[in-house]
This record gives sequence, structure tokens and C-alpha cells, in this order.
Amino acid sequence: MWIDSLGREELLAEHERQAAKYAQLKAEKLALDLTRGKPSPEQLDLSAELLRLPGEEYRDAVGTDCRNYGGLEGLPELRAIFGELLNIPVGNLVAGNNASLEMMHDLIVFSLLKGNPDSPQPWCREEKIKFLCPSPGYDRHFAITEQYGIEMITVPMREDGPDVHVIAELVANDAQIKGLWAVPNYANPTGAVFSEEVVQALVSMPTAAPDFRLFWDNAYAVHPLTETVAPVLDVLGMAAAAGNPNRPLVFASTSKITFAGAGVCFFGASTANRSWYLGLLGKKTIGPDKINQLRHVKFFGDADGVRAHMAKHREILAPKFALVQKILEDRLGPPKAASWTEPDGGYFISMDVADGTAARVIELAKDAGIALTAAGSAFPYRIDPDDRNIRIAPSYPSLDELSTAMDGVATCVLLAATERALSLQ
Amino acid sequence: MWIDSLGREELLAEHERQAAKYAQLKAEKLALDLTRGKPSPEQLDLSAELLRLPGEEYRDAVGTDCRNYGGLEGLPELRAIFGELLNIPVGNLVAGNNASLEMMHDLIVFSLLKGNPDSPQPWCREEKIKFLCPSPGYDRHFAITEQYGIEMITVPMREDGPDVHVIAELVANDAQIKGLWAVPNYANPTGAVFSEEVVQALVSMPTAAPDFRLFWDNAYAVHPLTETVAPVLDVLGMAAAAGNPNRPLVFASTSKITFAGAGVCFFGASTANRSWYLGLLGKKTIGPDKINQLRHVKFFGDADGVRAHMAKHREILAPKFALVQKILEDRLGPPKAASWTEPDGGYFISMDVADGTAARVIELAKDAGIALTAAGSAFPYRIDPDDRNIRIAPSYPSLDELSTAMDGVATCVLLAATERALSLQ
Repeated sequence: MWIDSLGREELLAEHERQAAKYAQLKAEKLALDLTRGKPSPEQLDLSAELLRLPGEEYRDAVGTDCRNYGGLEGLPELRAIFGELLNIPVGNLVAGNNASLEMMHDLIVFSLLKGNPDSPQPWCREEKIKFLCPSPGYDRHFAITEQYGIEMITVPMREDGPDVHVIAELVANDAQIKGLWAVPNYANPTGAVFSEEVVQALVSMPTAAPDFRLFWDNAYAVHPLTETVAPVLDVLGMAAAAGNPNRPLVFASTSKITFAGAGVCFFGASTANRSWYLGLLGKKTIGPDKINQLRHVKFFGDADGVRAHMAKHREILAPKFALVQKILEDRLGPPKAASWTEPDGGYFISMDVADGTAARVIELAKDAGIALTAAGSAFPYRIDPDDRNIRIAPSYPSLDELSTAMDGVATCVLLAATERALSLQ
Repeated sequence: MWIDSLGREELLAEHERQAAKYAQLKAEKLALDLTRGKPSPEQLDLSAELLRLPGEEYRDAVGTDCRNYGGLEGLPELRAIFGELLNIPVGNLVAGNNASLEMMHDLIVFSLLKGNPDSPQPWCREEKIKFLCPSPGYDRHFAITEQYGIEMITVPMREDGPDVHVIAELVANDAQIKGLWAVPNYANPTGAVFSEEVVQALVSMPTAAPDFRLFWDNAYAVHPLTETVAPVLDVLGMAAAAGNPNRPLVFASTSKITFAGAGVCFFGASTANRSWYLGLLGKKTIGPDKINQLRHVKFFGDADGVRAHMAKHREILAPKFALVQKILEDRLGPPKAASWTEPDGGYFISMDVADGTAARVIELAKDAGIALTAAGSAFPYRIDPDDRNIRIAPSYPSLDELSTAMDGVATCVLLAATERALSLQ
């Protein structure tokens, strides 16, 4: 990093330059937000037709009155469309309400209170249980396991997925490890796509716990930023072939396809897992909102309809990601003041700044009116061991706002780095 | 009952008459369903406009973009409409997705895994916990407590609500009793409306468990069958005045107002309970389907809009309930072969047939193509101690179908009674 090579005088001068820039930034009194992966209004407009659907109709293709109770597993037509996109047989896919997070939560709650089909006893009866958390990862995953006192173990994320050597060693020897959080395609926040080798290792590795599960959150399966979408591997088929059919629990939703708050979600799993889930689910609901599912069927038509729709999202999103890359490269590239991911899909860019400065960067940005995701968010217990990771969510702001915000963030990164270097001298 | 006064010859003759009638009934090869409290297609048509709403708009009155994430507690305007109807301050009311059953389930799950704000420890850490179940009651309530191994204790239902003397005695002396299931207005299945005295007793009685809760499912608050709706008591205010502000957990939904599968649901409680619930809920969802909530706001306009809408439901439902009363009176009244409730609201009629014959009546009806709710459904563990209760759900069939079905049911009641009397002689 450039500051390491500077003498004290040069460092003081650099610090003064960045402090002056930061003072200018603060004077602009910005109010910009890069915290969450929210679709922009322009993206939401792409699904405007949903606001008037289903229109006159309220029956699905087999004649079910979607207005009434029933149909716990969701509309067959909708499951067919997303079964194709998620590479999951329709019979193994359940469609639900507006939050796949809820399905993940419920599966953990059901496992805690009842145990899953392979559990010797309910998880809450075990002395302790643990989950593996590839990090940087998704804060809302970690929040669920934290809420229920499940110990979280950080494992490293690589460019091709989590470190399977570390994972295999852990799960082989510790029966308290019951699960692993995973975002296999365009991971939150690094954008990594799990390679076939990584997936093969995860579905086939021996585990001390017979009821170990992969919580496979395929939130960005159809969300490329390039022309070619990364393959959605047949994780259920691969697990079955490896003799572990019940291991993957697959999740997805249309939150970043149609409306973030009013979409539909999906759960895919083996027949045994599906039956177990539906049996318990049937005690908490008489069925999902089938009208909203029908609305989505009418809107998309088929899987190609979803693909065409996602191309429109890409047209809006790709320039924002390119802009962030350009500003980071222009401002932080030559001084090597940070490194960052260049994802081919998903909603985030993961940036590593100088060790020990991420929290300070986020604080500086906040004081300048630029909201960034809280420090440590991408790690279990919100503790980034190196205090260096920052998640950037470029989707929501306009290009102009994004440009201003990222330029401001770059100033904060440089200022924090000089502060830190001075304090260490 | 008339058969008690018959000699053997007369009884044999009566049995032969009913058996002949039953043979005719079976020959009709009916396929009718009186099992569940489902709205009829005609009732669902009343909300047809919802299928095209919200139309162009996607913002609520304060400008929130309902398409995006957020707003855990639901739209303020919708909560204002139902706060008025449910007699709950808007600030204490949360609006959710399509199933209040899900909210009840989640509150039990949260209590089991985390404990409620007054719990010394999570319920799952207690050696045993118990719920009081006024019966006949709602099978789906009992299914939740059964699923999680919570012991259910049957307490009697009266015309003015559950037997508060029995209840007060139990809760005062047993700290393992953590809750009571209740449907305060037009109860499922008896139609009873809890009197103010009963509600006062329930909110003020001393309980051995500090974290005892009333699961107050006001599913039929605005569902009268007569011109006057029964008052919706301010149960939260009464509980607060009695020094037990956290005791009631109130639930409601539009499942039987708009679309059974695609409505919105509500949870009302003290500020402490609300904060606790939202804190835990926030880990399983980023918010409810606000577009569906906005759809309902546009559809109703205000609380009077809901009242006017419910009057249309009443026009459809009241004749069905009257028809059931007439057929029961005509066929079973003079012989005193059964007794039944005459509800002023709600969705059910609860009928008591001759002791020891309910399961047989349901079996005979089933063999004749008339589906009735399974025997014992209205009791914990599906065990009706007297085998005499049958829940009748008149809402779904047309008047013609209902007439045929109820006449058939009356034949089955009489046949089963004569069979039973003969077997006892």
C-alpha cells in the first residue's frame, strides 16, 4: 500500500490533502444511502403491471380458486417456472409468501423444536449446536442463528466459494455443527460463484452430524450483470448422487425480480425434507397467498419471461456496478489503498480497506451523510477480525448519487488510511 | 330424548324407518362438504375489485414506496382502519401477511425458544408447560400447541364464554399453565360471545405463571349474522387497568372479510409485547407484503367501508344459517334428538347429538357423500369425551346443497341414535 512507503512529512502532507477533501465533502451535506441491497424505483417500475394483476381471473390452470384457503405447496404453474430456473424438479419445490428469509427462519425453528428428518433429537435438546458461516457473508443469515443462540464459526470465502478444506475438516469431527450458510451464485457480498468442485465437496463430504444441512440461499440465481448467467447447479441431484439427498435446503425469491416487499419465495429440497416441512408448515398456515402467486404467473408467463425481465434489470444495474468499479479504480487503484471484488452478478461489491480502518471509514462516511452498512456486518457477531471489510450496495441510488457517494467513500478510505498510518508511526 | 321413551318394538320400527331413509340418501351419491369455514365463491366475488388493485398507485399516505423492503409493523392507514374495528390503538397494532394463524404460531415459537417479556426463562427450558383449551374450540389452535408438545387442558365453554371459575382455580395454582386459547366474539364453533364479566375475570385473575398469556383470536369481530354487531371489548385496556397489561395477545385477519387465502392479518398487544415481537420478527422478515395492505386500504377506504362490506357478507350468510336452524328444528327438534347453538355471528353451528354417536354420525354422513369435520376436532387431542359434538360449517355450499346436506345429516343423527339405543337395550 502506498502509505507504507511514505516518510512522516509526506504522510502528514497526504493526510492534510485528504482531510481538506473530506472537509469539502462534509460541506456538501449529503444524504445518500449505500447500506442495503434494495432495488431502485426504476427497477420496481419494470413490474408495474403486477399492480393491476391478476385482473379478472382468480383461477389457476387446473381450476383452483386462488382466492380461497388451501394449497400449502403453492401454485404448480409458478413452481414450474421457477423449478426450471432453479434447476429443481417441480415436485420438490414449494412456493410461499414474500420472504425466503422466513422459510430459512422456520426451518431453523422447526429443527430446534422438532429436529429434522435425520435428527436423533430436536436441536434445542443438544448441549450446543453450531453453524458454519463463510465470511464475508449475509448479515441476515447470521442474525437468525445468533437470535437462537447457535454458535457461529467463521470460515473463509474464496473466489470459487467457501474454503471446503477447512469446512470438511470441521464437519467431519464435530457433531455439533448442524449447518452451513451459503449463497452459491453471486454471493452476498463478494459476488463469488461456487464452482462445481466446491459444490461437489459440500454435498459429499462426511459429516459427524447425521442431520447436517446446507442452507443454500440461491437469492441471485437469475441475477447476472453480464450477458451470460452462471450455471445453476443441480445441488439436490448432486447431493442425492453422493448419498446425502437431504443435505441441501434451497431457497430463492422474487424480491429482487419483481417487488422487494411483495414477491414470492421458494423452498426446494428432497422429498423427505419437503414432507417434513409441509407437515409442520400446515400447522402455522392454511396456505400461501395464491393470488400473488397467480399474479406472478400472469406477469412472467414462463421461465423465458423471467429471463427477459432480468435483462431489463441488468440494463439498469450493470452501469451502476461499472461506475463503482471506475471510481474505486480511479481513486484507490494507483495508491493500492483498497481491494474490491468485481462481481458478474448479484447486488454487492465487497471492499477491503487498510486493516483496522473499516469502522473509521464507515464513521467518516456517516458524518459526511453517506450511509454504509455497519462495520463488521458481513461477519458473525458483527466482528470483522481485521476491521477491513465494507459492503457496497450500488443498486438503490441514481447514477449521479452513486458517483457522489462513491467518490466520498474513496476520500474516507484515504483519510482513514493516513490517520491510521500516522497513529502507527 | 325421544328414543329413551320407546319400547323395543317401537325402537326397531324407528330404526327401520331411518335406515330406509339413509339407504335413499346413499343412493343419491352426493358429494357435499360441510367441513371447513370457507367463504363461498359468492362471498369472494364481493372483493373482486381487489384483483385489480392498487392499480397505478404504490405509495401509502405518507409516501412510502410499498413495493420495496421495510415497514415491519405494516401500513399505518390499514392499522388505523382495523384499530378502530378491533378497539386497539394504532400504535399497538401490527399488520402482517395472509395468516393470523402464523402470528399465533410464531408467538408460541418465540415464547418456547426465547420466553416472552415476563418469562423467567424460555418455555422450552421448563420441565412442562400447559395451555387451557376451552372446548368445543378451534382445532387449528389446538394443533399448534399439540405440535410443540404443550399439554392441553380442556375447560368447558358456556354461553357467555369459557368457565372462568374453573380457569381461575387452575391458573392460580399451576405455574406450568402459560396460556389460554380464546375466540372472544362468535367463538368457533359455538358462536358464544364472551361477556364483559368473563373478559374482566380473565384479564384480572391471579396467575401462578408471571408470563401467562391470553391468545385472543378475534377472528370474527366484525362478522355478525344479525343487524347489530356484538361489542368488541377493549381487552388491552381492561388488562392494563387490572395490572396485567401484557396478558392479552390479540389476533384478527381479513381471511373471512376479503380473500381467505390472500388477506391481511393483525396482532395487537401492549407496547412491551409489541416491541418484543417486532424485535424477533425482524430476524425472519424484512416486512409484510405492503402492496397487499395498500390494496386493502384502497378497497375499504375506512372502517365504515369494512362495515358496509360485512353487511353484504351477512346477506349471503344469514339465510344459510337460518336454513340450517330450520332443518335441524324440523327434523331433530320434536324428537329432541340433538341440541345446537344459534349463533348471532361467526362461521359455525355447534351441534351435540346423542352421547356416543357423533363419530358414527360423521361416518354415516361420509359414506353418504357428506363430509363433516372429523369427530372430536373441536377438542384437544381430537378426543370428544362424550363423543357427541359435531361442528357444522354452513358458509361454503349453496342453499340447495346445504339443504340436501343438512337433511342428510339429520337422517344420520337419527339413524345413529336408534342404532345406539338398540345396542344399549
